[in-house]
Amino acid sequence: MSFFRRHGSQHSKQYGTQYGTQHAHAPALAPPGTKYTRASGRYPVGSGVGGFAVIRESVPPPGANPKLWAWFVSVDVDRSGSISAPELQRALINGDWTPFDLDTVKLLMGLFDTNRTGDIDFNEFSGLWRYIEDWQHVFRRFDRDGSGTIDGSELQSALSQFGFKLPHHLLALLVAKYASSPTGSEVLGRPSITFDRFMRACVFVKQFTESFRGLDGDNDGWVRLNYEQFLTVYFSLP
Amino acid sequence: MSFFRRHGSQHSKQYGTQYGTQHAHAPALAPPGTKYTRASGRYPVGSGVGGFAVIRESVPPPGANPKLWAWFVSVDVDRSGSISAPELQRALINGDWTPFDLDTVKLLMGLFDTNRTGDIDFNEFSGLWRYIEDWQHVFRRFDRDGSGTIDGSELQSALSQFGFKLPHHLLALLVAKYASSPTGSEVLGRPSITFDRFMRACVFVKQFTESFRGLDGDNDGWVRLNYEQFLTVYFSLP
Repeated sequence: MSFFRRHGSQHSKQYGTQYGTQHAHAPALAPPGTKYTRASGRYPVGSGVGGFAVIRESVPPPGANPKLWAWFVSVDVDRSGSISAPELQRALINGDWTPFDLDTVKLLMGLFDTNRTGDIDFNEFSGLWRYIEDWQHVFRRFDRDGSGTIDGSELQSALSQFGFKLPHHLLALLVAKYASSPTGSEVLGRPSITFDRFMRACVFVKQFTESFRGLDGDNDGWVRLNYEQFLTVYFSLP
Repeated sequence: MSFFRRHGSQHSKQYGTQYGTQHAHAPALAPPGTKYTRASGRYPVGSGVGGFAVIRESVPPPGANPKLWAWFVSVDVDRSGSISAPELQRALINGDWTPFDLDTVKLLMGLFDTNRTGDIDFNEFSGLWRYIEDWQHVFRRFDRDGSGTIDGSELQSALSQFGFKLPHHLLALLVAKYASSPTGSEVLGRPSITFDRFMRACVFVKQFTESFRGLDGDNDGWVRLNYEQFLTVYFSLP
């Protein structure tokens, strides 16, 4: 299963020997115990040259994990020093080589672009990397048949582990919504969900449930909404 | 603006001279007055050869528009005689060369796979083609600055034309949801929406509004929902 597509950037070459044995599409490993947010040093920045974006020498900030830095530099194709949504989308692929949905990329950037610049800097990238890695472990654990995609019963197990129990008809609707094909007929007739859509489905169920609980002030299992409130809830979900 | 990416199929070559002057990525034109559904003849079907899918001779069904047939054959890369979701997704591109979202492809297949086979046959393709063409006219009309994407005020105009008036803060949330970048900083700081996401945003507003009206039985502007009903509405929307 691969999540990052490494670009043939000249910057990545300097890490070539260090990672020569690693498959080009295997995800790099973050060091154990890394938190989602981590302080980083400032980047050494050169001066603007020839109308291109400021060239950043690819020297990792002090204390940076060099593997992670190599990935960051490789994803930052225009060498702007930060990763834009299109750059992130080009870099992120599922195990079946399909790209991540733009909506998953937007979800990730919403979670990790903590300073709201519209780009992911190296500090934010560290958190994003670890987050994807954690989801990768979850995905592998629940992809019991090793198909590389998640089917309905595997999704049910994952949600159950997270504390969510959906009745069967709602689970079926959830699977239909996040399946990678309209009818799920691609993989032996069972709806199959790729990694990025699995991640989004789980985050959706969690956030939806929290939103509902927040609206259900008297905890009677019912909420009352007008058109604007209803739409606002919808727009807040991934 | 281009919506269909023509594959280098050998079948499409036979239409090469006929459409030689047409740009490879320009959408073909359906004949005036074509409806979304149209009866078509049966396909001449050969026998299975060498383990591949059944080879269909690329002779259009009686009465078929030859341009449309050429596109259909070109999109049907595996020559199965119908178009799968992955084939359709590979064929559909926005004017900025980004692929259509999988969720847009699923929306289209949900609308036009009327016999629910999970594939689009030529008859269904005719309807789909015309539908996209109609949306293309809408998109061009409301893309007033000719940027190839729709910004907030252009979306507002389009929705207003369709009879929907969203208050400013909801419009801003809608734009953020469907914009092609997390912050919309890509195009002169204004959120920009590609063709396929514009189409989905409009269909969403229409369907959401209809769902809300359906739930608001006493027409007082409020609906009361439990968790399952709320989720069911969500899953019914594109």
